[in-house]
Amino acid sequence: MQIAMIQDKIVPAKELEPVYFDRGMFFGDGVYEVMRSYNGKIFALDKHLQRFAGSMSAIEIAGVDIELIRFRILKAFEAAGITNAKIYFHITRGSEPRDRIWKADLKPNFFLTVSELSDNTEEKTQGIAVSTHPDWRWKRCDIKSLNLLANVLASNDAARKGCDEAILVDETGLITEGAGSAFFAVQGQTLQTTPLTANILPSITRDFAIKAGSNIGLEVIEKSLTPRQAADSDELFIAVTTRDIVPVVKFDETTIGDGKPGKQTNLLAHEFLSFTV
Amino acid sequence: MQIAMIQDKIVPAKELEPVYFDRGMFFGDGVYEVMRSYNGKIFALDKHLQRFAGSMSAIEIAGVDIELIRFRILKAFEAAGITNAKIYFHITRGSEPRDRIWKADLKPNFFLTVSELSDNTEEKTQGIAVSTHPDWRWKRCDIKSLNLLANVLASNDAARKGCDEAILVDETGLITEGAGSAFFAVQGQTLQTTPLTANILPSITRDFAIKAGSNIGLEVIEKSLTPRQAADSDELFIAVTTRDIVPVVKFDETTIGDGKPGKQTNLLAHEFLSFTV
Repeated sequence: MQIAMIQDKIVPAKELEPVYFDRGMFFGDGVYEVMRSYNGKIFALDKHLQRFAGSMSAIEIAGVDIELIRFRILKAFEAAGITNAKIYFHITRGSEPRDRIWKADLKPNFFLTVSELSDNTEEKTQGIAVSTHPDWRWKRCDIKSLNLLANVLASNDAARKGCDEAILVDETGLITEGAGSAFFAVQGQTLQTTPLTANILPSITRDFAIKAGSNIGLEVIEKSLTPRQAADSDELFIAVTTRDIVPVVKFDETTIGDGKPGKQTNLLAHEFLSFTV
Repeated sequence: MQIAMIQDKIVPAKELEPVYFDRGMFFGDGVYEVMRSYNGKIFALDKHLQRFAGSMSAIEIAGVDIELIRFRILKAFEAAGITNAKIYFHITRGSEPRDRIWKADLKPNFFLTVSELSDNTEEKTQGIAVSTHPDWRWKRCDIKSLNLLANVLASNDAARKGCDEAILVDETGLITEGAGSAFFAVQGQTLQTTPLTANILPSITRDFAIKAGSNIGLEVIEKSLTPRQAADSDELFIAVTTRDIVPVVKFDETTIGDGKPGKQTNLLAHEFLSFTV
């Protein structure tokens, strides 16, 4: 007979809710998405659902109808009645006694939250500072999984330095992406960002940022940057679902341009917002 | 006001137990240990506690008295009354609405289980087959964290191939370790295993296996192996808390030696058991 303990309290394992035996907790054995709405409409819902289906497939969570996920999202979004909402959801492989080998008949666990999203206008008008951190993440960051401890540690390192995002640098000395964002540099009339590889998240906001950049006449170059190249750029910004386009005005110790959001970045952010109406 | 959804059911977020907002679930933001007892006595308790304290420190979970953890383990172990037990426990940074930046005053969540451990004598007398898999883990595997999806995927790949462990191979073509074990090769009178680096778990069973090997007269070499070198070895075995020393008789498609557990491995396993009484 198995017993469990929560903090100081001993409980028979069979009396515990399945959530205590969730493989998401034991192994991070699950995948997630974050979406947002603008004025009562969820942005890029289809693209997020498509990526979520891809993540599930990549880690072999099978038998989940993506249309059921869509239905749940819309139901919860409607029930919340929040105009500008942040929608988070994850699915894990299911609950069972801890074993790396999963049982074939597990029922996946779905969890979702809807919360108010208030746009931070100050970071858009003033810009943010970012700091670099070694990229400690696993080698399948193309999968949006719950294994996010490397991102958490990098983000908190940045926060401690008074920065609003960590920019991850791999062992070859190249920038991969932000701990929770895509990262872009503007040099003259070019817009540069890391190419999508096995270790880059196929960011949806990245796609829209590229489209916006192209629309305003920038030449898009998908090529990794070194921290030195980033610091020497005319303008920098990050792109992320919950914050859209955020200008970066300080990179480690280097002030970018004149320390204010760049002209191309502002144009691009404006163009980006036109996609959301 | 935030709402949540569990499977198809909408619930006010504030009515949910904290476990649903555990950072262990959202990010794998926690660390763990697995220990076992032999005949009513927990093996290497101090070493496991020391490593656990190191893991907590590495991810900056502060303010947890390791003596309180020891007290909880002993209390639960006694309550379970299991002679040969497997003890699993983890601590996460705590519960809060999902945010990569953690709040300073979070209270860590402790969870532990005690279950019956039945020694698998067949795998010790017959040996097991193992298969290689790319090492997709993060770059801080010296920390025993809850980010284990790479290990889970590799383990299930091995199981699908009829193997009992996955041996991880990094991008430079060298074996790091097993998905849930340390990996050893015997060649003549030498015992070889990967050196401890930033991306190898400081396995406690590995330490005891090295000591046992030394005691029976083997020369210990800490140097990474290629899969080719492993397949060409006289003997192979894995070492892991819950299984002790397990002979490996097949490596991918290659039969090791005569397909039976090796002589040195058997001697070493016998020596290892002498540490546990």
